[in-house]
Amino acid sequence: MNETIQLLHNHRSIRKFTSEKLTNDEVRTIVKAGQRASTSSNVMAYSVIGVTDEHLKKELRAVSGQKYVENNGYLFVICADLSRIAKLNKEKENIRKNLESTEQFIVATVDAALVTQNMVIAAESMGLGACFLGSLRNDINRVDELLQLPEYVIPLFGLAVGHPDHKPDIKPRLPFEAVFHENTYDKDKKEFVQAYDEILSDYYQKRDCNNRDDNWTNQMIKKYSVLTRMDVSAYVQKKNFNKH
Amino acid sequence: MNETIQLLHNHRSIRKFTSEKLTNDEVRTIVKAGQRASTSSNVMAYSVIGVTDEHLKKELRAVSGQKYVENNGYLFVICADLSRIAKLNKEKENIRKNLESTEQFIVATVDAALVTQNMVIAAESMGLGACFLGSLRNDINRVDELLQLPEYVIPLFGLAVGHPDHKPDIKPRLPFEAVFHENTYDKDKKEFVQAYDEILSDYYQKRDCNNRDDNWTNQMIKKYSVLTRMDVSAYVQKKNFNKH
Repeated sequence: MNETIQLLHNHRSIRKFTSEKLTNDEVRTIVKAGQRASTSSNVMAYSVIGVTDEHLKKELRAVSGQKYVENNGYLFVICADLSRIAKLNKEKENIRKNLESTEQFIVATVDAALVTQNMVIAAESMGLGACFLGSLRNDINRVDELLQLPEYVIPLFGLAVGHPDHKPDIKPRLPFEAVFHENTYDKDKKEFVQAYDEILSDYYQKRDCNNRDDNWTNQMIKKYSVLTRMDVSAYVQKKNFNKH
Repeated sequence: MNETIQLLHNHRSIRKFTSEKLTNDEVRTIVKAGQRASTSSNVMAYSVIGVTDEHLKKELRAVSGQKYVENNGYLFVICADLSRIAKLNKEKENIRKNLESTEQFIVATVDAALVTQNMVIAAESMGLGACFLGSLRNDINRVDELLQLPEYVIPLFGLAVGHPDHKPDIKPRLPFEAVFHENTYDKDKKEFVQAYDEILSDYYQKRDCNNRDDNWTNQMIKKYSVLTRMDVSAYVQKKNFNKH
């Protein structure tokens, strides 16, 4: 296992940071490494917003409910952004139709995710830790308003980065066999999910802090039984994404 | 710049591979490194399909129109996959409603993209090259049929991996200033896009092969003027994603 792959295997989400802030150079290094990720047809359908204003961070924390949205070394919000294309000539019917398609919603979402994963890896290679903040979608309209996003720009998630102040255990993932298929999709993977339930249950019982009795199946049923973020669809369409 | 960040900056999409195939160990190493990426609430809403059957590769090449879909060291197709959750209890109304929401379409698309970016980085760290294949969405229904995907599973893109048989120049990206905003979205970034037009035009004129006279603005207007993949929306909804 080479050093880069070791780094990938060493990933854990960091949710507790020291008070040390990132330098401007560090922020720039992270974003520029992000920009090197692949992008669909060189569209680069994303923007990165660095949130440094303390009042704004407090407001975003209120949306998320997570204190590490406020307490971190740096806070990014990553957006799907088709506005650069829209500006070129959105009056042209085909351009507008493309921009507002589900296809382009996928393009922009994937572009933004690839950039962010590179940012995470760059940060971790610098000894920093990071945590994705899907929780900003708890009130996506509010985030839109706080960051003053124009049409064709939507916030997908945040990324809190900073100097780690804890070292959580590495959470086991579904076994390779559960997620990997050869040639055609194999519907019969139940045994691997069951195996994972045992692995995760064991992990929760043994881990250093916050140990409990739980497994993946129970967690997922619990999570998906509560209707969540049902306003995202209308918001996204209001911003001219994913309309047809 | 540390070694990992150098690796990220050294990325170029590889579209020409030697005939050397990846070993099973290499495939496993790449996918397992992918699995270490962050995932929303530990949902792991993705599947990876390894395509080794030559007939199937030929058919997928026909969808894509790119010969490196067939000629590579290994071909992956990465899917958004909520079927594992659906299997737990899709009869429960709230679970089904969540699964079919735009919110969960974002979750699954982002999860799949993060895994794949880790796979690319792992492959590149092993001296391999890779190229994303959004072109599989040229006929997403056909890819679905070829890979026999069940409901709640959709193919997002392919990833061709292999031993590089060319070394393309590194394509310049939009300047940092064009994609980075502080605190609120800055709509006035035109000068940076214009600067990029000049940078890219210069790159196309000077690069080793396939040099031409073009810039970003022209490319984007040309690309977005042709209606593309308008069937993706109906397909996605047919598979129970992104319905409301």
